[in-house]
Amino acid sequence: MNLNFTKMHGAGNDFIVLNAMAQDLSGLTADNWRALADRHFGIGADQILLVERPTIDGVDFKYTIYNQDGSLVENCGNGARCFVKYVSDKALTDKREITVQIATGVMVLTLNDDDTVTVNMGAPSLDASTLPAVVDGCAQREQGSDTLYEVKLSDGHVRWLSLVSMGNPHAVQIVNDVDAAPVQTEGAELETHSMFPRKVNVGFMQVLNQQHIKLRVFERGAGETLACGTGACAAVVAGIRRGELVSPVRVSVRGGELNIAWAGAGQAVYMTGPAVTVFDGQVSI
Amino acid sequence: MNLNFTKMHGAGNDFIVLNAMAQDLSGLTADNWRALADRHFGIGADQILLVERPTIDGVDFKYTIYNQDGSLVENCGNGARCFVKYVSDKALTDKREITVQIATGVMVLTLNDDDTVTVNMGAPSLDASTLPAVVDGCAQREQGSDTLYEVKLSDGHVRWLSLVSMGNPHAVQIVNDVDAAPVQTEGAELETHSMFPRKVNVGFMQVLNQQHIKLRVFERGAGETLACGTGACAAVVAGIRRGELVSPVRVSVRGGELNIAWAGAGQAVYMTGPAVTVFDGQVSI
Repeated sequence: MNLNFTKMHGAGNDFIVLNAMAQDLSGLTADNWRALADRHFGIGADQILLVERPTIDGVDFKYTIYNQDGSLVENCGNGARCFVKYVSDKALTDKREITVQIATGVMVLTLNDDDTVTVNMGAPSLDASTLPAVVDGCAQREQGSDTLYEVKLSDGHVRWLSLVSMGNPHAVQIVNDVDAAPVQTEGAELETHSMFPRKVNVGFMQVLNQQHIKLRVFERGAGETLACGTGACAAVVAGIRRGELVSPVRVSVRGGELNIAWAGAGQAVYMTGPAVTVFDGQVSI
Repeated sequence: MNLNFTKMHGAGNDFIVLNAMAQDLSGLTADNWRALADRHFGIGADQILLVERPTIDGVDFKYTIYNQDGSLVENCGNGARCFVKYVSDKALTDKREITVQIATGVMVLTLNDDDTVTVNMGAPSLDASTLPAVVDGCAQREQGSDTLYEVKLSDGHVRWLSLVSMGNPHAVQIVNDVDAAPVQTEGAELETHSMFPRKVNVGFMQVLNQQHIKLRVFERGAGETLACGTGACAAVVAGIRRGELVSPVRVSVRGGELNIAWAGAGQAVYMTGPAVTVFDGQVSI
């Protein structure tokens, strides 16, 4: 069968976007997603995003995201931005505020006048146990309204981590020079540390000023990526709670720039960033 | 401007193929090739292949290949196969034997009945000095009609290398278990060894039987790749000269299967392999 697709990226996190309302994708399986996502033998992408008809009344669209390995992704802020740009560019809607059904509920997404997209990423959970993280017997100290947890690395060094859940678990630390940070090695060690029974995403942030950070994230199961949307949210939440940042905060990641706004405990985090259409294609599978 | 392109691969070595006879690409620069080849922000490919009008009478086509970094590639066997499949699929010719002008001369390429393509890769040069390789004072021994050169690694181990030039330099060794071979570390060490003033491609081959090898190649400037056409030729030439292989030889590389035929000293090497069209696309640059 022939498929029409669009290749997009949000701050370097790249997607194959397929319109499942205009073509029948119901027979496709995890094997197909893996083959399409392969960067040498297929189209190549971090993830595949299907634009679908919603099954909830009053909601504009539904989308589903698959990983490179064919598994389902609960959600992805970079994908949400690409989704909005796609339905707008392809004239599937003329709304600027779009509701979309995803695996975990309904999101509201806004296409801004400057063509960036703002995503309501939900409220963070700041309770270590929900991460989940096992912090019994672990040294703790307070900074601002945040609690930092001590972790000893295998080389004897100590790190003080902020723990934030954005639906997925994040351990965030502040470093002096993020370009020199040992993201690969220390990220891999913390990802699988016994403190995190379901592993963790590891963020390294350098505070440039109260409203601008530079961030690198070692993503759970993926290693360092060009842009991790929930990682940017988690880092800014941690920085604001520590008293080092003031909302909104510009976040420079390897793949581009994100803007994160958070009004404090109990409030949703808003992520604004770019979405870029790279090319349209037709593939036979 | 809008560009039409086709994404192809030959044993996993992947190409963006652009028809420069049907669209004006004369204004494009190394910056454009780099942007198009980027796997997250662009189309993504190892190389970019331009199909052009020849400037030599009686020749069917010309092609030019650019690397990911925007630099010119002299030639590439995997690219040659994709070129033939492209001009055939797009009905730019109905010939089965196609002459093509490349940077270093004119090649003859054959589209076989089974849709594989056979490429005349030229005769190997077996003189170490033309590689170039500096072998003065280096221990040597004969095996069959081949001369092996001794190299000491930094960990004290010794390797006996066959030296073959296929237009580009190759150092080939036979290993017992290619899957366990230290291709990354030892490849990097040999690539930049003082024996090779212009560096070298490093091949590790396991002889499964006289007509079947398993091969991994650490490519100069690129690291291990899925398929190196000249590396497959060099390995088979070395194996035949050592008396361990008999032409034609099936070569299993990470990205697929190649078939290499060589009639001996002074003769051209023929490489046969697949070329696959993955998708067509339209990109705005």
